[in-house]
Amino acid sequence: MSQGSAGLAVKRVIVALDPAVEGDVEKLLGIARLACREGAGIKVGLPMLALGGSEAVSEAARLCSGGGLRVLDLKLADIGYVMRLAVESLARGFDAAIAHAFIGSEGALEELKGALEGMGVRLVLVLSMSHQGSAEVIDPCLDRLISVATRVRPWGVVAPATRPGVIARVRSAMPRTVIMSPGVGAQGGRPGDAICLGGADYEIVGRVVTRSPDPVSALRSVAGSIAERCPERLLPAST
Amino acid sequence: MSQGSAGLAVKRVIVALDPAVEGDVEKLLGIARLACREGAGIKVGLPMLALGGSEAVSEAARLCSGGGLRVLDLKLADIGYVMRLAVESLARGFDAAIAHAFIGSEGALEELKGALEGMGVRLVLVLSMSHQGSAEVIDPCLDRLISVATRVRPWGVVAPATRPGVIARVRSAMPRTVIMSPGVGAQGGRPGDAICLGGADYEIVGRVVTRSPDPVSALRSVAGSIAERCPERLLPAST
Repeated sequence: MSQGSAGLAVKRVIVALDPAVEGDVEKLLGIARLACREGAGIKVGLPMLALGGSEAVSEAARLCSGGGLRVLDLKLADIGYVMRLAVESLARGFDAAIAHAFIGSEGALEELKGALEGMGVRLVLVLSMSHQGSAEVIDPCLDRLISVATRVRPWGVVAPATRPGVIARVRSAMPRTVIMSPGVGAQGGRPGDAICLGGADYEIVGRVVTRSPDPVSALRSVAGSIAERCPERLLPAST
Repeated sequence: MSQGSAGLAVKRVIVALDPAVEGDVEKLLGIARLACREGAGIKVGLPMLALGGSEAVSEAARLCSGGGLRVLDLKLADIGYVMRLAVESLARGFDAAIAHAFIGSEGALEELKGALEGMGVRLVLVLSMSHQGSAEVIDPCLDRLISVATRVRPWGVVAPATRPGVIARVRSAMPRTVIMSPGVGAQGGRPGDAICLGGADYEIVGRVVTRSPDPVSALRSVAGSIAERCPERLLPAST
């Protein structure tokens, strides 16, 4: 592994900032800046909103305004009207927002996409998830989910590091769409599975970095593992 | 329509409190008490959390503590770990919390159900939605969704007032599960479609009541329409 490929790999790792208790909020906001400066960016969602309020969500985005991808991950899955209200309040300052493809386009994702575009925020659609239960309904419906995504034309999609075969199917169906892969680390995906085996663009890590006594080293260590496995895949990510 | 059936019907109408702008939060909290005293209860979700914070969400539940069903509707659709963090912060004081059946049981709904049970909160699963896009992926997967719900055994399920035929399929598959039906009013469902045609237990109305200059009259008017259509269905709702 060259120094160069490790440097490229770390720009493919997004850090999920999910506080478990109120006392974690400040600590994770401290990691936000590091994750954007050293890594590819941050992902914040419902735990940050619940424990830190909309102020903490906005602050995470602000701390990353010097660079790095800021992803708002509320796993939106409601009617268009409700999702529009939610993103109008919360998505400012973010580069992208995640919603579920399974809710469909008409009266839902088409309205969300319009609302996000008006705010300069890109849409990312979940096509598959990292937990076992994704095999119960989501994965058997993957062709339909890809068909929704093909119609809605999001900037990015989510497919799990825990099932690189699913990522490869998504990559083949949507060759030019950014793929983000959660599930690395605590959920069982090995660093590099998503990028090296599946063809993902970004791997998302949470607790492995945020619970480390040295988050930057933990982030670099994940990146180093990816760089060792497939340095040839690590051209600079498209953004 | 007798006075008695109108009185029973109003106890089948839940009011969705979704603020569109920050100034709506106080107004909707004012309606919370009325909705619980006069009607069946309240449903609050992401717009209230985004605009009023977790304090407003808790306050809505507190205002209904004298009676009425308090439903937290975040349309949860994440891995178990993240949903657990969210409900531990937000679900206290509520009677029920809504999640999507779509995400499956293993590593998701089973963990959520355990977390909710520990807090005395009942689980409600979305099986179908009120917007047109529900026909793209969700409804074609309805048998799988019902199968997840049959395994998870939630207290209640959600099926849309806009498609009473879907409610009837759910009622037939889950005869003893509470069915809540959104989509009445602004979304196109007529009052009574869900209860009278589909066999639902509760109809959920939002803007028709919350944007009325006289929310109590609007609520009673919805109930009156239900009572006229099917007084024979209006035995006291199971809770």
